[in-house]
Amino acid sequence: MTGTAPVTFTADDYRARMERAARQAAEAGLAGLLVAPGPDLVWLTGYAPTAVTERLTLLVLAAGRDPVLVVPTLEAPDAERAAGATALTLRDWTDGKDPYALTAGLLDAGGRFGISDNTWALHLLGLQSALPGTSYAALTDALPMLRAVKDAAELELLAAAGAAADAAFEEIRTVPFAGRRESDVAADLAARLRRFGHSQVDFTIVASGPNGANPHHEAGDRVIERGDMVVLDFGGLKDGYGSDTSRTVHVGEPTDEERRVHEIVREAQEAGFRAVRPGAACQDVDRAARAVIARAGYAEHFIHRTGHGIGVTTHEPPYMIEGEEQSLVPGMCFSVEPGIYLPGRFGVRIEDIVTVTEDGGRRLNNTAREMVIVD
Amino acid sequence: MTGTAPVTFTADDYRARMERAARQAAEAGLAGLLVAPGPDLVWLTGYAPTAVTERLTLLVLAAGRDPVLVVPTLEAPDAERAAGATALTLRDWTDGKDPYALTAGLLDAGGRFGISDNTWALHLLGLQSALPGTSYAALTDALPMLRAVKDAAELELLAAAGAAADAAFEEIRTVPFAGRRESDVAADLAARLRRFGHSQVDFTIVASGPNGANPHHEAGDRVIERGDMVVLDFGGLKDGYGSDTSRTVHVGEPTDEERRVHEIVREAQEAGFRAVRPGAACQDVDRAARAVIARAGYAEHFIHRTGHGIGVTTHEPPYMIEGEEQSLVPGMCFSVEPGIYLPGRFGVRIEDIVTVTEDGGRRLNNTAREMVIVD
Repeated sequence: MTGTAPVTFTADDYRARMERAARQAAEAGLAGLLVAPGPDLVWLTGYAPTAVTERLTLLVLAAGRDPVLVVPTLEAPDAERAAGATALTLRDWTDGKDPYALTAGLLDAGGRFGISDNTWALHLLGLQSALPGTSYAALTDALPMLRAVKDAAELELLAAAGAAADAAFEEIRTVPFAGRRESDVAADLAARLRRFGHSQVDFTIVASGPNGANPHHEAGDRVIERGDMVVLDFGGLKDGYGSDTSRTVHVGEPTDEERRVHEIVREAQEAGFRAVRPGAACQDVDRAARAVIARAGYAEHFIHRTGHGIGVTTHEPPYMIEGEEQSLVPGMCFSVEPGIYLPGRFGVRIEDIVTVTEDGGRRLNNTAREMVIVD
Repeated sequence: MTGTAPVTFTADDYRARMERAARQAAEAGLAGLLVAPGPDLVWLTGYAPTAVTERLTLLVLAAGRDPVLVVPTLEAPDAERAAGATALTLRDWTDGKDPYALTAGLLDAGGRFGISDNTWALHLLGLQSALPGTSYAALTDALPMLRAVKDAAELELLAAAGAAADAAFEEIRTVPFAGRRESDVAADLAARLRRFGHSQVDFTIVASGPNGANPHHEAGDRVIERGDMVVLDFGGLKDGYGSDTSRTVHVGEPTDEERRVHEIVREAQEAGFRAVRPGAACQDVDRAARAVIARAGYAEHFIHRTGHGIGVTTHEPPYMIEGEEQSLVPGMCFSVEPGIYLPGRFGVRIEDIVTVTEDGGRRLNNTAREMVIVD
């Protein structure tokens, strides 16, 4: 949100990440990692092709071997310009050649590999066919915490993205709501996120009145009325790192019930935040927030997990959900976002990004969590 | 590009597409088709989730059975609003449940399935694990021509997208080039595509001077100079259907060599176009264009295939490439885009979208193919 130049990463940073990933893969019993274009590839190499197409691009990592990026010849010049390119070897292939045979030549024919979650099925099937003796695990299943612990530079970028989202909220609470369509307010929000430095807006949820009871309602033609609760949930990427925050505002004076439900969610969010500390389990954060809502009698109206990680994407491990026993580690960043959803009536959600510190948690969103009255 | 309301598709259209796809799958020996969010799902159901995440959304099609869409509970309300929703049954699953077990219950445990190319590896691995007796083929390998033959309404949308791209070119040829960065001209192009009705701009390549020799150079900081050749290649989606056209312009007077190379590419493009007719093979289009370039002595400088299909994406089967024996069928739409690339010097590419008619081909791009001189 300021004019400060963003942190950038060097080839050495990417080399260190690739070495760490290959080492973790070996420790997990994997012969290597296969990474297609997407957030894992960006994080490991700094490379994002202009478009993800049916042409195979795949990073091959194995402990003790130099990283290799298999890339279509057409895209090799772009790949060579990636910040991490000097830390790897490019192997390009031209149209008409078999990229799976090329990749197979780089792999242990009987190995088990971690493969990035979003790799196209087309490519996984190509590899399975080229090397029938190999087996595969989704990268998030095999190494769920690969990108979860952020370094100091990453935390700085996430904090800046959070501050930009907060600045957008401080402005949006002053615009008129009543009489405008949800989609108009959503466009206002998106424009502000971009003005405060977001290069990509992933979602601008404006869910008014009964629409608020659908946690994933985006924004539609409904005209916002006086008396509506309005859930705002918005985020995207700024300098390559994510923001994601929710506040629930009210158009004019709320009813006692609306105040009470909002206050329960605020307390649940506070309880979730207070459960964040090194050594606690992810599910402890979920349990702490959920307990507040359950005690107030709304257990069946909190219909999603309490949070998700954030980094080079707005949605990644670790997940704050019952059953997730992963321990929290300083540097992890994730949302704490309990909600109550009353079908046909209204919803409330309050969300901050929280990072784990040496002795607790630190919020990267800091706007008021009390109910804000808008016009 | 005009104010005419776009064609829209009804639940009956989507029902017919799903039935046809299921029937083609059965004829190909498949037990069914599995389709994740992306162009295939849009084409079959009209549904595109707000974001593609790690939560499984999957359409299950099998001949003689009602289509089922497996969808996260959170996203079910959005899915219910899709134009094709009444032609299928929703089966939702909540966080913490196993969506692969749910999907497995809908599948023949020993069957072979076509699965959409861009389905995440995470999901394919989940299905392979839940049903070890199943096998899979990428949808494009199993039914490459599923979306290739466009109906009349689709052709109308593709023609409108092409006309909008042409209108953008007619304007961009009048803006100043010399002394501006490629990225500035690219921004001009993107703004014009949007103004002429594109909701999504997929690429705006502005490749000047030596950058033109890289077919996939996008647009960078290079300042365009007098004497540069500039390859312009741009497109995106308008009302859900794609545009993609290339013209190569020259800043000021070209040299004799530049004129000659441009004329060879123009003749190659014309030859490719003239090879389009029902019953010809895709590779015949490639061969016709390539022969012109080879005869002129530039064979090794035409380093990509001659074309690719277009529809709800800007890049899909059929491919105009040596070895593709698929016959052309009326209603198919694809690019014809030969080029010559002289490393370190310049490149030339000329591209039109062409649709196969009853007795030949019809271009959906119609701006001048002679070299245009810009300022």
